[in-house]
Amino acid sequence: MRPIKRLISLDEALSLAMNRTHSVTRVETVPILGGYGRVCAETVISKINVPPFSRSAMDGYAVKASDTYGAAKLKPVKLRIIEVIYAGSVPKKSVLRRHCAEIATGAMLPNGSDSVVMVEDTELEGGNVLIYDSVHPGQNVSKKGEDISVGTPAISKGDILNPSKIGALAAIGRREIAVYSKPLVAVIPTGNEIAELGQTLKPGQVYNINSYTLASVVESNGGEARMLPIVNDSIKDLEKVVKANKDCDMLVFSGGSSVGERDVMLDVLEKHGTVVFHGIAIKPGKPTLFGTIGKQLLFGMPGYPTACLSNAYILLAPVLRKMSMLPLRASATLETKMAKRVVSTTGRTQFLTVRLEGERAYPAFKESGAITSMAFADGYVVIPADVDLIEKDEKVVVHLL
Amino acid sequence: MRPIKRLISLDEALSLAMNRTHSVTRVETVPILGGYGRVCAETVISKINVPPFSRSAMDGYAVKASDTYGAAKLKPVKLRIIEVIYAGSVPKKSVLRRHCAEIATGAMLPNGSDSVVMVEDTELEGGNVLIYDSVHPGQNVSKKGEDISVGTPAISKGDILNPSKIGALAAIGRREIAVYSKPLVAVIPTGNEIAELGQTLKPGQVYNINSYTLASVVESNGGEARMLPIVNDSIKDLEKVVKANKDCDMLVFSGGSSVGERDVMLDVLEKHGTVVFHGIAIKPGKPTLFGTIGKQLLFGMPGYPTACLSNAYILLAPVLRKMSMLPLRASATLETKMAKRVVSTTGRTQFLTVRLEGERAYPAFKESGAITSMAFADGYVVIPADVDLIEKDEKVVVHLL
Repeated sequence: MRPIKRLISLDEALSLAMNRTHSVTRVETVPILGGYGRVCAETVISKINVPPFSRSAMDGYAVKASDTYGAAKLKPVKLRIIEVIYAGSVPKKSVLRRHCAEIATGAMLPNGSDSVVMVEDTELEGGNVLIYDSVHPGQNVSKKGEDISVGTPAISKGDILNPSKIGALAAIGRREIAVYSKPLVAVIPTGNEIAELGQTLKPGQVYNINSYTLASVVESNGGEARMLPIVNDSIKDLEKVVKANKDCDMLVFSGGSSVGERDVMLDVLEKHGTVVFHGIAIKPGKPTLFGTIGKQLLFGMPGYPTACLSNAYILLAPVLRKMSMLPLRASATLETKMAKRVVSTTGRTQFLTVRLEGERAYPAFKESGAITSMAFADGYVVIPADVDLIEKDEKVVVHLL
Repeated sequence: MRPIKRLISLDEALSLAMNRTHSVTRVETVPILGGYGRVCAETVISKINVPPFSRSAMDGYAVKASDTYGAAKLKPVKLRIIEVIYAGSVPKKSVLRRHCAEIATGAMLPNGSDSVVMVEDTELEGGNVLIYDSVHPGQNVSKKGEDISVGTPAISKGDILNPSKIGALAAIGRREIAVYSKPLVAVIPTGNEIAELGQTLKPGQVYNINSYTLASVVESNGGEARMLPIVNDSIKDLEKVVKANKDCDMLVFSGGSSVGERDVMLDVLEKHGTVVFHGIAIKPGKPTLFGTIGKQLLFGMPGYPTACLSNAYILLAPVLRKMSMLPLRASATLETKMAKRVVSTTGRTQFLTVRLEGERAYPAFKESGAITSMAFADGYVVIPADVDLIEKDEKVVVHLL
C-alpha cells in the first residue's frame, strides 16, 4: 500500500487547482431564452433605435409645449383635438399651434408635437380638450433611441444572461445569442465493487452514487456532465477511458485515489500528465488527487460518497465556475448555535454536516461512507484546521445545502 | 378612459395573490439526475440495506476485536493472514481466533471478524501481521444498513432534490423519481404595437420584450412557460386565448392593463372570472391586474418592460414558488451607500434600479419603458411607501439582479 506523502491545506489545494484552471472559450449560439444563466460571448451592437420612434409615455394629449405655458386649474388652455393615435398606429396629421392629438401610452408622437399632457390634467369639451397644467418640451415623451441607440451595445461580452439582459436582446430584435460553451466534464466511476443503478447487486457490490452527486454539482455550476460507465481499477482500463475522453475539459474520477493496493489512478496520472497534489488536510475527503493531462484537469475524488460530494462542493464547484466564467457563488449561509460540543482533529479542516432544528445545529455526520451524512443534513459547518473544539452553544455559520 | 379605482399597497397585493395560490399537485416521473432542483412527490422507502453488507471503512485487517485487546506498540499481537479481500469481492474464509484477513476499504467483512485494524497500526511479518493497537468490536466497520436500512425512507415527499438527496436515491438503486409537475404558465403578449423578434418593425411598432423577460422569471422560479403569439387588444381575441389555454395553471398577460381606451383585459377578467386587485401603489408597475378564472390565476402586467419585469420579480416569482412548492427565495443582497440623493413618491413603494460602482449604488432607472433601466443595472433598492427621501451616503440594501 502506498501512503499519501504530504497533506496540503485546503486553501493551498484550492489555490493550486484554481491557478491551473482556464476558462473555456469555445462559443455556441443559442436562442435568447435558452441562454438564461449563460455567459455572453459577444458584445451586441444595436442596429436599431429603441424605441424606434419618439413615443408617448402616458395616456394623454400630444401638444406643442409652448401652447400649454401658463395653463392652470383655474386658467385652462383649450386645444382642438385633430386625431386619436393608438399604440402601433401612425399619426396621419401634424399638430399645429392650438391643436393636439389624443395619444395612448406607447403610441408614436405626431409631427409638430414635442410633449404629452397626461389625461389626468385635462378635461374633454366637445371636440376640444381643456389643459389644466403646463408641460415642458420632452415631458412624458420617450425619445427615439433613448433606451438603446443605434451603434451602442445592448449587451456586452462576459455579461451573464439574466431576465433583463435577455430583455435587452429582445428589445433590439435578436433571437439568438453567442454564449461560451459549458465545460465538458467526464464523470467516471471506478471500482470493482460499484454497480450501475437498475442492476441487481451482486454480493460485495454497492450502487454507483458518486456519478449522480458529481453530475448534479457539475450541472448546477455551469458544466455539462458526460456520464461514463463504471471502469475497473486497472491501469489499462483507466488509460483507455482517459484516451477516449480527450475532448473533455475535465475528467472527474471517483474512487481509486485512496492508498489501497489497487488504487492505480495515481500511476495513470503520473504516466500521462502531472500530479499537482495528492492528499488534502480535510476531513472527510483526504485522499483527493488533482492534476493535469495537457490542457485537461483531472480530479480523483475519494470513493466514499460524502467525502466525494463535500470535495465537489469545496473544490470542484469553484474550479468549474472559473472555467465557465461564472462568478464564484457564495453559498447561502445561516448563523446559528451548535447544539452539542464537537471535537475536531487539529491540522485538518473538517466539513461537518448538520441538521437545523429550532435555533440549533445538530451534527448529522455519520461517516464519509454514508450518503445520509449529507442527504439527511440541511447544511455544513467548516471547522478550520486550527480549531479542535466547538463548544455547545457556540455560534457557527452553516452553509446551506 | 377608465381610471384605476383604488391602489392597494404592495404588501396587500402580495398577500391577496399568495392567498389565492394553490400548489400544483400533478406528478410526473423523471430520471433522478433530471430531477435536480425539483420537489419530490413520493416518500421512497428503501427495499435494500445500504451498505448491503457490513464492510471495512479502512484499508487494514479484519480481526476479532478480542484478539487485539492489550496490543500496544511495544507489545504487538501477531495474527495469521488467511486471505486478501478486495472491494467488490466476497470473502472465501471465516476468520478464526488469532487469524485475520487483509481487507480494502469498502470490502465485505468476512464471517468471524467484527472489526478492522487500520493498516497504519500494523506491520507485516511473513504471512503474519503484527497488530500495534487494540480495536473494539465494530471499530472501522460500516454496518449493514447503517446508512439506509430496509423499510426506512431514503427521501421524503416535499424534499427538494439536491446533490446529496439524488445520491440517496442512487444509493438504493433508484433510477427515476416522482416529482411535482411544474406549474404551466401561458405567457401572452398583447398590444397592436408589438412585433415578434425576427420580424421587420413596421412604423409605430416595437419588439416583444416582455414574453422573454417573463418566461425567464417563470422558468427560473419552478414554472414552465408556454410562449404564445402576440394577441390584439380586443375582447374577442383575448377571450379566444383564455379559452385555448384552460390547461394552464396561470395566464400572464403583458400590456393591456393600463387605463387606455383599448385596455380590455379587465373586461375579459370581469366577465369570465374574478378581479382580485387592479392597481398597486408601486412605482413602476402601478397598472397591474390580478384575478382568478376558476382555478387559474391571471396576471395582467404593465406593458412597459421594466414595470413588467419588476412586478414579475416582486409578485410573480413568489406566487410561482408557492405553486411549485419551492421555498420562497430571498434574493442575494448587498449593503452599500447611495451615491446620490433620491426623492421618492410618498404613498408608493419604489423599485429603484441601481448600478454598483466602488462602494456606492448609483440610480440606474431611466423610465419604466426602458429595458435598460434594468438591463444596465446590477440590482434594485426597494424604497418603502412611507419613505420620500434617501440621502446621499445613506445605507441601502441592494437586491442583486
